[in-house]
Amino acid sequence: MSQAQTHTGAEEQGRINRVVIIGTGLIGASMGCALSNAGYVVYLRDHKISHARVAAGLGAGTIEPPVSADVDLVVVAVPPGAIADLVVHSLQIYPNATVTDVGSVKAGVLDELWRRDLDLGRYVGSHPMAGSHHSGPMTAHAGLFVDRTWVVTPHRRSAPESVERVRAAVRACRAREVVMDVDDHDAAVARVSHLPHLMSVLVAGHLTGVPDGDLMLAGQGLRDVTRIAGSDPGLWEQILGANSRAVLEELRDVHDQLSLLIKAVEAALTTDELRSQLERGVAGTRKIGGKHGAAAVKYSEVVVAIPDSPGALARLFADVSAAGVNVEDISIEHDPVLQVGYLALSVAPEHADGLIETMLSHGWMVS
Amino acid sequence: MSQAQTHTGAEEQGRINRVVIIGTGLIGASMGCALSNAGYVVYLRDHKISHARVAAGLGAGTIEPPVSADVDLVVVAVPPGAIADLVVHSLQIYPNATVTDVGSVKAGVLDELWRRDLDLGRYVGSHPMAGSHHSGPMTAHAGLFVDRTWVVTPHRRSAPESVERVRAAVRACRAREVVMDVDDHDAAVARVSHLPHLMSVLVAGHLTGVPDGDLMLAGQGLRDVTRIAGSDPGLWEQILGANSRAVLEELRDVHDQLSLLIKAVEAALTTDELRSQLERGVAGTRKIGGKHGAAAVKYSEVVVAIPDSPGALARLFADVSAAGVNVEDISIEHDPVLQVGYLALSVAPEHADGLIETMLSHGWMVS
Repeated sequence: MSQAQTHTGAEEQGRINRVVIIGTGLIGASMGCALSNAGYVVYLRDHKISHARVAAGLGAGTIEPPVSADVDLVVVAVPPGAIADLVVHSLQIYPNATVTDVGSVKAGVLDELWRRDLDLGRYVGSHPMAGSHHSGPMTAHAGLFVDRTWVVTPHRRSAPESVERVRAAVRACRAREVVMDVDDHDAAVARVSHLPHLMSVLVAGHLTGVPDGDLMLAGQGLRDVTRIAGSDPGLWEQILGANSRAVLEELRDVHDQLSLLIKAVEAALTTDELRSQLERGVAGTRKIGGKHGAAAVKYSEVVVAIPDSPGALARLFADVSAAGVNVEDISIEHDPVLQVGYLALSVAPEHADGLIETMLSHGWMVS
Repeated sequence: MSQAQTHTGAEEQGRINRVVIIGTGLIGASMGCALSNAGYVVYLRDHKISHARVAAGLGAGTIEPPVSADVDLVVVAVPPGAIADLVVHSLQIYPNATVTDVGSVKAGVLDELWRRDLDLGRYVGSHPMAGSHHSGPMTAHAGLFVDRTWVVTPHRRSAPESVERVRAAVRACRAREVVMDVDDHDAAVARVSHLPHLMSVLVAGHLTGVPDGDLMLAGQGLRDVTRIAGSDPGLWEQILGANSRAVLEELRDVHDQLSLLIKAVEAALTTDELRSQLERGVAGTRKIGGKHGAAAVKYSEVVVAIPDSPGALARLFADVSAAGVNVEDISIEHDPVLQVGYLALSVAPEHADGLIETMLSHGWMVS
C-alpha cells in the first residue's frame, strides 16, 4: 500500500480536472482556453463579470460556480497587488485545491503569505513568460503559452503533489516548464524583463520632449526599443514595487555604465570605452541567441568565387536555390591583395557536401 | 530667354541620367537598383571590387568606368569617417556633377568641407532613413527606400540646381523627401536614432553579466529592445563620434531621468515619480504614432451589450465580420454597479452608422 502512495504524482496528474481561474485578463482567459482544450473543466471568476463572460464566449470555461470541495486547482491571475489576498482566500474556500498564481514577481507574495501564518503546502507560485501589451480577454487564445517558458517556483513547504498539479497544468498549456527558486526567479526577471522595460520607458519618455518634426526621422529601431514602454503603467508600478530590491541593483549598474558612456563620448578622440561598450552590446545580443533562447547554431561555409560576367550571379543564386539546400546566411569575403571576392554560403553541416557537389557540377569555382 | 532659365529645375530633372555611386554597401547598392529601375545609368565604384561586382549582379549598375565629364550626380555612400575626403575627390574629378553623401550625421562633414576652402555649390548632403543591421550589398534591393523619409540638407552655398538633382534622385528611389537644416537634422537623429541606439547597447551590454539560465526567461520585449545593439560597432563609433555634441545633450538628459527613476524605486512607498515616468513612456510611444509617423487616427465607437447566452459572442463577432466593416480595435467596457458589460467596436467614423444599422438588424442591443 505504501508502495502505491509513492506513485501519487502520476495518479494526481490524471485526476486534476476542475480548475478555477480567478481573473480573466489575457493570461487567465488564455489559460482557460488552453486548459479547456486539454479536457479540464474550467470555472471563470472575475469581479468584472463582463470580462468573465467574454472569456467564456471565447471558450475559456464557464461562468457557473463550482462546487468548492471538487476544485483541484485554483489559478490566481490578477494584478500583482491583489495576488496575496486572493491566494489566502482561495486556500480557505477551496479546501482540496492546489493554489497557484501567475504573477511576475514571486518573493513578495510568498513573504506576505508566510506572515499570514498559514499552512502553505497547497500553494506553489508560477510565472508564464507570455503576454502582450494588450490586456483583457479580447485577444486571449489557447496558443498563447505554446513553447514559452513557464517558471514554477516551489517553496520549502510546497507539497510534491501540489507542485505536480501546477506542472501538469503548465504542460497542458504546452509551455516549457522550468523549476526555479523564488529569489533566483526574481533576480532573473529583474535582469531580462524589468530593467529592459524601464530602459524602454526612459527612451519613450524622452520623446515627449522632442519636436514633432524630428519623429519624421524615426525608423524601425526606435519603434522596437520603445514598444514595451506602451504597457499599462498601473500594472508595471505594481511589478516594480514588488521587485524593487532586485530592480535597483540592475538600475544602479546601468547608471554606472551610462556615466562611463557619457565620459567616453565626451572624450571624443579616445573612444576605446565607447568602442568597448558598443562591442559589449553586440555580445549581449548574441547571448540572447535564437528564438527560444537556444544557443546559436554552428553552420558550415561553402565558398564560391564571385563570377565576373553579367548575369552570372543571378545564375549562381538560381543554382544554389535549385540545390534544395536551406542557405542560412550569405556573406561576401574579399581578398584585398588579389582584388577578388567570394560568396560564403552558410548551411547546416550535413548539407555542405551536397551543396559543394551540386555547385561543382554546375561549373562554379568552389573552394 | 531669361524666362526659360527659370525653368531649369524641371529641365535638369529630365537631364540627369549618369550617376556614380561610390560605396556599394546596402545603401549604395540599393540606391543603384532603385535608380537603375528609374532609368538612370549607374556606375558602381568600391575599393572592394567584389562588393561592386555583387551589386552589379543584383542590377545596381555597371562596374565599367564612366566618362568623368558626363557624370551628373555622385553619391558618396561610404562609412562616416571616409565621406569628406571622397566628396572632395568627387568634386575634383567629376567637374559637372552634383555630389551628395548619405551619411547619418551632416554637420561634421560640412565643417570639414568648409575648411578645405572649396566652392561647395555642387555639394548637397542627404540622409536616407533606411537600413538594416545587415551591411554589404547582399540584401540590397530597389524597394529599400520606398515611403521612407530621406532628408536633404542644403547649405547656404548649395546651388538650386544641385539641390534639385539630389531631390530628383530621392524621388526616383520613391522615398519621402524632407528638406532640413544641417544642425536641425543632427539634433533630430541624436534624439530619435543615436540615443535609442545607445540605450539599446546599454541593455544588451548588461546581458553579458547575466547568468545564462536567466535568458530562458527572456521574452520578445528584450529582443525588441536590444535588436539594434547588434549593429556594427565600427560604424556606430564613427556616427557617434561625428555627432557627439548633440548625442551628449540627450545622454545627459536621460542620465538625469535615470537618477530620478532610481530614487523613485528606492522610495518604494511614494511612487508618484515612478508612475509619472511610466506614464511619460506611454505618452512617448503614442507620439511615434502610426507606421509613417502619422498622427493617430480618431475612430468612432459602436457599443454593443455583451450577450449572456453561450455561443452568442461568437455569433456577434460573425455578424460584425459579415458587416464588411474594418474594426480597428475592440475593448470591453464594464459597468461596476450594474455588473454588465459592453463591447466597444472602434471603426472609421464613416462606417459607424452602417455598422450600427447592421447590428440592430441582427437583433443586437446597440447603445
